[in-house]
Amino acid sequence: VKQPCLLSNWANTNRMKHIQDPASQRLTWNKPPKSVLVVKKIQDASLLQPFKELCVFLTEQKNMIVYVESKVLADTAIAGDESFGAVIQKFCTFREDLDDISNRVDFIICLGGDGTLLYASSLFQESVPPVMAFHLGSLGFLTPFKFDTYQSQVTQIIEGNTAIILRSRLRVRVVKKGIIMTNGDSEGSRKSMQYQVLNEVVVDRGPSSYLSNVDLFLDGHLITTVQGDGVIVSTPTGSTAYAVAAGASMIHPNVPAIMITPICPHSLSFRPIVVPAGVELKIMLSRDARNTAWVSFDGRKRQEICHGDSITITTSCFPVPSICFRDPVNDWFESLSQCLHWNVRKKQNYLSSEEEEF
Amino acid sequence: VKQPCLLSNWANTNRMKHIQDPASQRLTWNKPPKSVLVVKKIQDASLLQPFKELCVFLTEQKNMIVYVESKVLADTAIAGDESFGAVIQKFCTFREDLDDISNRVDFIICLGGDGTLLYASSLFQESVPPVMAFHLGSLGFLTPFKFDTYQSQVTQIIEGNTAIILRSRLRVRVVKKGIIMTNGDSEGSRKSMQYQVLNEVVVDRGPSSYLSNVDLFLDGHLITTVQGDGVIVSTPTGSTAYAVAAGASMIHPNVPAIMITPICPHSLSFRPIVVPAGVELKIMLSRDARNTAWVSFDGRKRQEICHGDSITITTSCFPVPSICFRDPVNDWFESLSQCLHWNVRKKQNYLSSEEEEF
Amino acid sequence: VKQPCLLSNWANTNRMKHIQDPASQRLTWNKPPKSVLVVKKIQDASLLQPFKELCVFLTEQKNMIVYVESKVLADTAIAGDESFGAVIQKFCTFREDLDDISNRVDFIICLGGDGTLLYASSLFQESVPPVMAFHLGSLGFLTPFKFDTYQSQVTQIIEGNTAIILRSRLRVRVVKKGIIMTNGDSEGSRKSMQYQVLNEVVVDRGPSSYLSNVDLFLDGHLITTVQGDGVIVSTPTGSTAYAVAAGASMIHPNVPAIMITPICPHSLSFRPIVVPAGVELKIMLSRDARNTAWVSFDGRKRQEICHGDSITITTSCFPVPSICFRDPVNDWFESLSQCLHWNVRKKQNYLSSEEEEF
Amino acid sequence: VKQPCLLSNWANTNRMKHIQDPASQRLTWNKPPKSVLVVKKIQDASLLQPFKELCVFLTEQKNMIVYVESKVLADTAIAGDESFGAVIQKFCTFREDLDDISNRVDFIICLGGDGTLLYASSLFQESVPPVMAFHLGSLGFLTPFKFDTYQSQVTQIIEGNTAIILRSRLRVRVVKKGIIMTNGDSEGSRKSMQYQVLNEVVVDRGPSSYLSNVDLFLDGHLITTVQGDGVIVSTPTGSTAYAVAAGASMIHPNVPAIMITPICPHSLSFRPIVVPAGVELKIMLSRDARNTAWVSFDGRKRQEICHGDSITITTSCFPVPSICFRDPVNDWFESLSQCLHWNVRKKQNYLSSEEEEF
Repeated sequence: VKQPCLLSNWANTNRMKHIQDPASQRLTWNKPPKSVLVVKKIQDASLLQPFKELCVFLTEQKNMIVYVESKVLADTAIAGDESFGAVIQKFCTFREDLDDISNRVDFIICLGGDGTLLYASSLFQESVPPVMAFHLGSLGFLTPFKFDTYQSQVTQIIEGNTAIILRSRLRVRVVKKGIIMTNGDSEGSRKSMQYQVLNEVVVDRGPSSYLSNVDLFLDGHLITTVQGDGVIVSTPTGSTAYAVAAGASMIHPNVPAIMITPICPHSLSFRPIVVPAGVELKIMLSRDARNTAWVSFDGRKRQEICHGDSITITTSCFPVPSICFRDPVNDWFESLSQCLHWNVRKKQNYLSSEEEEF
Repeated sequence: VKQPCLLSNWANTNRMKHIQDPASQRLTWNKPPKSVLVVKKIQDASLLQPFKELCVFLTEQKNMIVYVESKVLADTAIAGDESFGAVIQKFCTFREDLDDISNRVDFIICLGGDGTLLYASSLFQESVPPVMAFHLGSLGFLTPFKFDTYQSQVTQIIEGNTAIILRSRLRVRVVKKGIIMTNGDSEGSRKSMQYQVLNEVVVDRGPSSYLSNVDLFLDGHLITTVQGDGVIVSTPTGSTAYAVAAGASMIHPNVPAIMITPICPHSLSFRPIVVPAGVELKIMLSRDARNTAWVSFDGRKRQEICHGDSITITTSCFPVPSICFRDPVNDWFESLSQCLHWNVRKKQNYLSSEEEEF
Repeated sequence: VKQPCLLSNWANTNRMKHIQDPASQRLTWNKPPKSVLVVKKIQDASLLQPFKELCVFLTEQKNMIVYVESKVLADTAIAGDESFGAVIQKFCTFREDLDDISNRVDFIICLGGDGTLLYASSLFQESVPPVMAFHLGSLGFLTPFKFDTYQSQVTQIIEGNTAIILRSRLRVRVVKKGIIMTNGDSEGSRKSMQYQVLNEVVVDRGPSSYLSNVDLFLDGHLITTVQGDGVIVSTPTGSTAYAVAAGASMIHPNVPAIMITPICPHSLSFRPIVVPAGVELKIMLSRDARNTAWVSFDGRKRQEICHGDSITITTSCFPVPSICFRDPVNDWFESLSQCLHWNVRKKQNYLSSEEEEF
Repeated sequence: VKQPCLLSNWANTNRMKHIQDPASQRLTWNKPPKSVLVVKKIQDASLLQPFKELCVFLTEQKNMIVYVESKVLADTAIAGDESFGAVIQKFCTFREDLDDISNRVDFIICLGGDGTLLYASSLFQESVPPVMAFHLGSLGFLTPFKFDTYQSQVTQIIEGNTAIILRSRLRVRVVKKGIIMTNGDSEGSRKSMQYQVLNEVVVDRGPSSYLSNVDLFLDGHLITTVQGDGVIVSTPTGSTAYAVAAGASMIHPNVPAIMITPICPHSLSFRPIVVPAGVELKIMLSRDARNTAWVSFDGRKRQEICHGDSITITTSCFPVPSICFRDPVNDWFESLSQCLHWNVRKKQNYLSSEEEEF
């Protein structure tokens, strides 16, 4: 629906509206939170002790209902720990892809690295509860909290009124052109899958040594053909992940945008571009592509894309509300510095005019 | 004012809102437009004939009141043309910096290149009327219309219902630290100037052969120090101008953002960054800067910045409503291709596996 | 052996010597060439007619002995063509990896793309005869000749005195750490392979979704660790192939150098570097690499690299003498323009000072 | 003179020759060195004490004849220091541009930063004595020695047998097209100047806000037109100075090459290029350039370039023999790390497959 922009012979009506202060969003509760999902990276022994401590604290000090994945309890170091038995008794467990917990938890706590939060995001295909993410080792872009002071930090979140950032996700639909069915459907059957992506969709040449060759459409128009190792469609959150390695500029997660970054493009002039959130992108193999492509979603669910298949990408209605350590601006610049050494430099005057000196 | 984001224990309320379809904005009129400002690049003989034709058309065919700058009529090729005399009689003239025409014109027509539209923008420090910009030579990012069919194009705009894009501008305040006044004002006097910028603010080392050394603040926090030839703070519109030459990614003008791009930074890791529209940036000389810096606004009003002076930049409330030739998406990709040869390439398979071939 | 550089108290002896004019090398013959190897890309129907024409010309007009690969004659379109039978009778055939033709042919003619010349290069693990390479479609970096005027061009080469460029190759040794043998060799057996590479050695993460993590040694010293999609070690010839897609500067093939280019490095500051021809590079998996890496040579012979394996790279003693269409300088700039659209641009003045104009 | 490259039907004769081990060059003396030029950055109080210490050591311990510039003694902190008077008595002094010391000193010691060595280089328009450069603050690319252990280091150099690197310079000729002379010379008079450059020649737009527009010729052929802020022609030594800030790859100083790097080019595809040492480059204003350009040499002698003027650049016959702290390879990688933080990074696995983890 086209939205008329009355310019009443324009005066005073075409002001920029809705420029939101990125520091303005706060998490508040209507009623006290009662349930929390704890997501823990598995097969990492260093997380066992923090995980147990945290669960005891949540259960016994805070009277929270703790959800954990069934498979976390499969670890004998947890299930076999008798001193931890009383806490385990109170756990609510669920199984990925089988049990729906989407309306049962008030917030999420992640223990691990950025990958752990990406995994937590993938558990929620629609609304995502607010996420508090601890890094156990070094600071990550998605994991701003240190575990040292977890008690006061968690308490503050339960009490509400902490800074939050809504990290946009991408909604991705993959449509696979199937073989013709016996029911006479001449267009063939199509199988469709949908994903919610927090960092990026990557389309690449997979194990092939030929270049990938994909067409990129925006709102139905072919805008370019990507010839190279592949292409990354990322959120602003993902701009500091794989996209930055491929040469992209870095975008603050509060910017409503989608970034398109080629991977080793066979063109000197293929600079990354940033388009507005809300456009619809579509990626298909080019007609003259000599081989298939491969797609993955936040590094997961890798699959082959053949002639006729399509990948449709747009901004999701379901962002990840990510709880800030300080606020969206300071957390981001802290991450740029700690994770990417952004503009760390030695002061020097390479152009020093010796004429002045001598 | 902090704006609470009630997450009513979050479900269903944290959806992304207001993701606007960039193709949705249209120009419509409350009442038929009656007055038009024609801005013409001066000292360009090739523009004389189109300018005259257009003015005759607007005045005699469309009964529009035409505003032109006084200095345009100083050109004897215009003022001395007797056959054009009748049209000149009807012109409303004004003088830059002296006469206020901000509420008198319904829309603007530009004849020239991107620079002509930058100039037209600078004439309006508050609301800007919609602008229709013709390129007389080759397509520019800001000048999508060809002159060939100007009559039908202008007619369509007068009738309303054409696609429009609101190009954000930057509001820039320069505060110069003055000397202490005799009235005992211990803080010294400060002289402040304000500019509306459509492409970019550039801070560079000027004629100095030393590196510039400026501190960059965001919402009051020092985020980094720029050491190099300078720094560009640009709108998305400006991302395809000087910023792209300095290595920036290209941002569609509908993205509400501000881009910060270093110019030849003395740091391998100083990648450009994109921050949300609405933040406040401030640039000052670093305490240990050995020389002054220079600032310019869309390439104009170049001035020196000394220790204690500050440049404060934020998204302006007054964008430039720029009339599209087709729509905001197609116009932009057409410009990328025509103006920057974006991803123009020869198809080739440099990694061709000869094992398969032989 | 350290070579003393007597500076006789230095005066006049430390002049730069041996700076060779890249246009100076010419191909001349001691005695008229009698045999030619014709390498043809197979499975490309468009090459059949040119191939036959060329062979007839070489055999009947020029009385040359023509070598072709056995498998070329497996194509029924060639073997079954009766009118071509007389020529086939005179062919000398050989089989890749089985028959040694290294001292039997005076020069090589390639029909195909750059890949065909890479393949021809791989047939010669030591000295390579001069190569004349025709592009049948569009110009390539390695294929400067158009087929239209092949008769006069081939005649000129047979007569001698044409410009030639010696394209350096890399000698690569891969040492695989084997399992401990029963003969009690406590260090384990090692299997070693050697390759001659004209474009590049690529080490990447293969099908793994983890970053590759390899250590890079130069003359025995660890100089850095590459964390990212991989690393490219290329000749100057290869600088315009995969390396340029990964962000490298372009190096003229006459520069005696080796280029090291990271592929999507997980570091903002990992700029490509160029080191002198003659150094010895070694690549091994880092101690803490979580997965193996994969290596390929001019896009061929792809193989896995495990902990303990090493890839040793240095400038080969056996370059490829590549016959120029015009000369080494003009051919290269023509390729940059045609293949990469280097610095193709629209003339524009984005910084145009409107103050002067208005 | 074209140099035939006999390929004696090529076999065994087209081996790569003269690939020099960059670590092979050593400084040895025919007879013990007796005189040393000490170059000190002036107006830097922190250098006074080291300078005096060093001069006392050289004069009294080593019996060297010490040359200093007259203007160094103009500093009252030196000339007025009575305790230093005995040493000053023994100084040989000279004046820049007036006195020729080119055959009088055995080697040079620099105290200061990279700029001090650039200045020392400019004092020698032909052969340059070996240079030992101390950094007093932080390591520079050209100043590998720490002052702490100067006595043993200087002693070792006087004894000979230290590693040395020959840093190539560029010989630059600027020809200014003058006005027509009264003697009837219809071509006009031309004024020619020559410079020896260790880092780079920079041609830029100077104070103009228009883009610079210069033609670049190689061995007499126009290879491209540079439209942008300017262009840098640098030695490999200079590749890590201004060129790296403009986006160039970094070239080890032992590579015989010349690097051409555009500064903020108005073209997405204008990647830097590297051409062989020994070619002749020429830069002139383009015919349609709207304004002049400015040229400088290692940041000095800045001057305007007008229509008809030319800048001719080639590899100089007179390199700077720069004494290494360890050797040419280790010194360079140490500088990359210390001065540019090359590939300093945090280890992280951004593509971590959570499927494996969960």
